[in-house]
Amino acid sequence: MKKLEKITTQEENFAKWYTDVIQNGDLMAYGSSKGSIIFKPLSFGIWDNIRKNLDVKFKKLGVQNVNLPLLIPESLLNKEKKHVEGFNPELATVTEVGGKKLNEKFYIRPTSEVLFGEFFKNEIESYNDLPLIYNQWVNVLRWEKTTNPFLRTREFLWQEGHTIHATSNEAKELTQNLLDVYSDFVESFLAIPVIKGQKTDHEKFAGADYTFTIEAMMKDGKALQAGTSHYLGQNFTKAFDITFKNKDNKLENAYGTSWGVSTRLLGALIMTHGDDRGIIIPPKIAPCQVDIIELFASKEKRVHEEALKILDLLSKNNIDAKIDASNKGAGFKAANSEIHGTPLRIEIGPRDLEQNKVLIVRRDTLEKTYVALEEIVIKVQQILEDIQNNLLNQAKQRLINNIFEVENYESFKEHISKGHWVITKFDGNGEDEDKIKEETGASSRCIPFNLEYKMHSKNCFYTNKKTNRVVIFAKAY
Amino acid sequence: MKKLEKITTQEENFAKWYTDVIQNGDLMAYGSSKGSIIFKPLSFGIWDNIRKNLDVKFKKLGVQNVNLPLLIPESLLNKEKKHVEGFNPELATVTEVGGKKLNEKFYIRPTSEVLFGEFFKNEIESYNDLPLIYNQWVNVLRWEKTTNPFLRTREFLWQEGHTIHATSNEAKELTQNLLDVYSDFVESFLAIPVIKGQKTDHEKFAGADYTFTIEAMMKDGKALQAGTSHYLGQNFTKAFDITFKNKDNKLENAYGTSWGVSTRLLGALIMTHGDDRGIIIPPKIAPCQVDIIELFASKEKRVHEEALKILDLLSKNNIDAKIDASNKGAGFKAANSEIHGTPLRIEIGPRDLEQNKVLIVRRDTLEKTYVALEEIVIKVQQILEDIQNNLLNQAKQRLINNIFEVENYESFKEHISKGHWVITKFDGNGEDEDKIKEETGASSRCIPFNLEYKMHSKNCFYTNKKTNRVVIFAKAY
Repeated sequence: MKKLEKITTQEENFAKWYTDVIQNGDLMAYGSSKGSIIFKPLSFGIWDNIRKNLDVKFKKLGVQNVNLPLLIPESLLNKEKKHVEGFNPELATVTEVGGKKLNEKFYIRPTSEVLFGEFFKNEIESYNDLPLIYNQWVNVLRWEKTTNPFLRTREFLWQEGHTIHATSNEAKELTQNLLDVYSDFVESFLAIPVIKGQKTDHEKFAGADYTFTIEAMMKDGKALQAGTSHYLGQNFTKAFDITFKNKDNKLENAYGTSWGVSTRLLGALIMTHGDDRGIIIPPKIAPCQVDIIELFASKEKRVHEEALKILDLLSKNNIDAKIDASNKGAGFKAANSEIHGTPLRIEIGPRDLEQNKVLIVRRDTLEKTYVALEEIVIKVQQILEDIQNNLLNQAKQRLINNIFEVENYESFKEHISKGHWVITKFDGNGEDEDKIKEETGASSRCIPFNLEYKMHSKNCFYTNKKTNRVVIFAKAY
Repeated sequence: MKKLEKITTQEENFAKWYTDVIQNGDLMAYGSSKGSIIFKPLSFGIWDNIRKNLDVKFKKLGVQNVNLPLLIPESLLNKEKKHVEGFNPELATVTEVGGKKLNEKFYIRPTSEVLFGEFFKNEIESYNDLPLIYNQWVNVLRWEKTTNPFLRTREFLWQEGHTIHATSNEAKELTQNLLDVYSDFVESFLAIPVIKGQKTDHEKFAGADYTFTIEAMMKDGKALQAGTSHYLGQNFTKAFDITFKNKDNKLENAYGTSWGVSTRLLGALIMTHGDDRGIIIPPKIAPCQVDIIELFASKEKRVHEEALKILDLLSKNNIDAKIDASNKGAGFKAANSEIHGTPLRIEIGPRDLEQNKVLIVRRDTLEKTYVALEEIVIKVQQILEDIQNNLLNQAKQRLINNIFEVENYESFKEHISKGHWVITKFDGNGEDEDKIKEETGASSRCIPFNLEYKMHSKNCFYTNKKTNRVVIFAKAY
């Protein structure tokens, strides 16, 4: 595993910095086919922690995990037209097996609404059978032209929730609840602050009545859609003839939702916290929270003994740690810990041990603290908590500082060109959004739910018509 | 979800019984394309528990989880010829995207040796970088002609471990250790006794130097290969040019292993423990261990109150339980619990509550016990443990009773036709095995590792030549 000698700085070239740190940090390797990546143990460990922790939150909402097939028969996909059009150019298609042509084509799922539709149809008879609140953790495939590791890959991992309900209110409530689960999780575990809102009709999921989103800001100022929750109304249940007998004993189409987060979250995490030394993983989601670094262990037996004791102590207190007992130098080991984003490292050397202390270095601020051996667990716990909070606060501050209200297109263009987000009154349509994107690179991110301040302008920045609709625009990943 | 009115008995028709109980037990639904199934919450919950518990055991052997791409470029697959031949007729092939033909075909992975080969090649330079002990939990696809839910489906879920090592001894040791992990896990969690052994050359994985297997016996007497561990030698590392600098500073090809278990284990579990009332899930792997059944709750408030208390108590003691508070009758609720294989149910009724007791019914023996409210946790724990042991012991007894030593082909045929396994001296080759299979339906299952008794015969039952090789034959899934 050859490492780059030098990581491009964020200021020099943010995109290059990103691909440098994910490779040097052993997060991924490129796969043998274009646009595919290999999740190495570190990135897969983070994803596994995302899965575990989200599953706990899902369970509280009554979500049950299932697993549906990878392949969609051609005839099935075509049942919901609007939704198909969006995906059609990206559909990987199985046409032959063992060199022989098949009678019917199969698409590799780009998402599974139609598969769940067909499944749901046979599962319900009356309102007593509802709701069905299902989720699956699977791979999906969309043949993207431009790819970027974690952010946009042809195959990616995600969870996709699919539910049906007896009333539209219940489905709408779940759409909102799931968005709240996502925003709580992303903020408290990944330390990424997000803005919750609704997509404009132009940006919503094809096939949804409306789409809720959480939008995060990366260190370069770009937006990243970190999770979406769709209220599907009866769009899929009508297409798939999913009916139930309601309380009045009449046949009615059920009401649907779908919602998902993907391995994009890894990209968001890296671009929210990383610095010129490499990635930084928030403690609550880190597969390894502490690197225990032995110094001059060959000269002094006690170094390794203490390392083992500390590992054991931390592990008993549910802190994930590992020992670097290699014969590399102190500087190499420190840099190696930093580049892998481990939140905290403990350096154990003979001289400090004589005074019964060790050195703790935190990854976010690089602050060094000498800690007495008997205080190690409590100190490590405190510092890990502090790192988690500090990462979130830094990101929050950046988000607040980088959003500007604009009242006209000139000012809009100026802020967007500086990498800012803009918040503005907007009542334009989809064509307007397309034009704005073409001219500035910015797309509408959402109609935010909670506005912390009153907008000054009364009119749309683009059409100049009077409107109450507030929209956030930004360049986005 | 329509239920069958009557489940076919095992004696009437075992195959029909199997498809009856997996549907009535809400384990699966058929997918929209042939040979595909939907894992409903119950079966996916079991698979998730298999994953969690195996991962703990894997971790102790230093296994790290990764995730590799779904698609294999045509050029890559052809690098290891022997291995390709075996899979070729079953390879689902992506030839177009969005209606346009691709320049290169892609195969959906039937297994990932070649993908790991390409990955490993770029990860190692010297013996310091070894071993790499990786695993992934993924879906794979093999276009089988005859399919059977869980047992043989076109797409299935599995874990596939892939490792490379600096010495053949280390790789061989891991091959053995993994087989031991599998057999320990399958016996202690799934309550399925297995016979460990080596596959004959005829039955080993194409591309392996040798294959170890664990073989289980189903209630109809058929064998089921429940897990395999392959020593690959240098077959893949030569094909993929995976070299490292050894301690003498010379380039050497690494030594590989691969190993896996799949969702077939669900089929094995069902056919080992199920009875004419439905499936039976061993407590240690059951997503729901206890059904709490409320009787006459509408007439007596205390019933629901006690149910909630018991749920809370069990949950605090890490016992997974759920309440059936529906307004169905006692008989329906009991049958419903039985058909879903829940190891134990607690029936709470007003009359028993007057005496501060509830009724516990175990799924395996259907034995009923009245238990005082204050003793509930300890009793439930005891009975769950007893069910786990009882299921394993019953299966062990069946396995022992159903294996017979044979010394000649006549006796071989007779036992096989009765659904027995035979243990016998055999030194035939692959052609002989093919003929035996054609004539009797039986295939060689393994050369068992630990023989508990001395074989009487000195000669091969088929060729009559003197041999020391002992082989087990059986009809198999």
